[in-house]
Amino acid sequence: MTVGTPISASPEQLATVSYNADGLVTAIIQQEGTGDVLMMGWMNEQTLRETLESGRTVFWSRSRQARWRKGDTSGDRQWVRAAYYDCDGDTLLFVVDQEGAGACHTGEHTCFYRSFGPAPEATSPDDQ
Amino acid sequence: MTVGTPISASPEQLATVSYNADGLVTAIIQQEGTGDVLMMGWMNEQTLRETLESGRTVFWSRSRQARWRKGDTSGDRQWVRAAYYDCDGDTLLFVVDQEGAGACHTGEHTCFYRSFGPAPEATSPDDQ
Repeated sequence: MTVGTPISASPEQLATVSYNADGLVTAIIQQEGTGDVLMMGWMNEQTLRETLESGRTVFWSRSRQARWRKGDTSGDRQWVRAAYYDCDGDTLLFVVDQEGAGACHTGEHTCFYRSFGPAPEATSPDDQ
Repeated sequence: MTVGTPISASPEQLATVSYNADGLVTAIIQQEGTGDVLMMGWMNEQTLRETLESGRTVFWSRSRQARWRKGDTSGDRQWVRAAYYDCDGDTLLFVVDQEGAGACHTGEHTCFYRSFGPAPEATSPDDQ
């Protein structure tokens, strides 16, 4: 059974995080190993702390104005393997082990399953 | 010399993009090949179109309230190889060929060069 690996962030690291007017920060979720970008979500200070302490991603739903722990409904939990913050502290990056089918509520592995362009082949990196 | 590869997005694809109250959408930038997440920026409808048509990333600076074409100052341009939009259309993902030293204004390759935790080694995926 996979369990969460807590990350002990220092007060200085946590103080570097810059929240917007709504008290939120963007969080990019990336699959460990493949590097696939799975989704983007929002966290507030509380759900960021819970994510780091529990080793599972927890977000803030802007539409529902509620805490939202990934996988509680779908079963597709995200186990945090590493957590980064960017140069100006307003975006976070979590490398995770995605459980189950994937990160997207549509059943796709990644929320970014659609590309701009005339056909999927035409925008594949392999074609360049 | 590297040049931009235009991406012909359909009107239907462009109409799927959902802008926030400020007319902006988040854009994640990922390095082709390595999968490194380089940075996160914001685009409006105009800079998204310019990005797709020119094959170079163009953003909207919220702090300066101005169009900002990546690399015009630093020289470190980003050449778009593929462009994706997420399930609810409010986040974009661009796979790019990053020129020069990197994406970050600090000189780092990625803006996410700092990790939460007691030491870089302790949060490396290799330790899990």
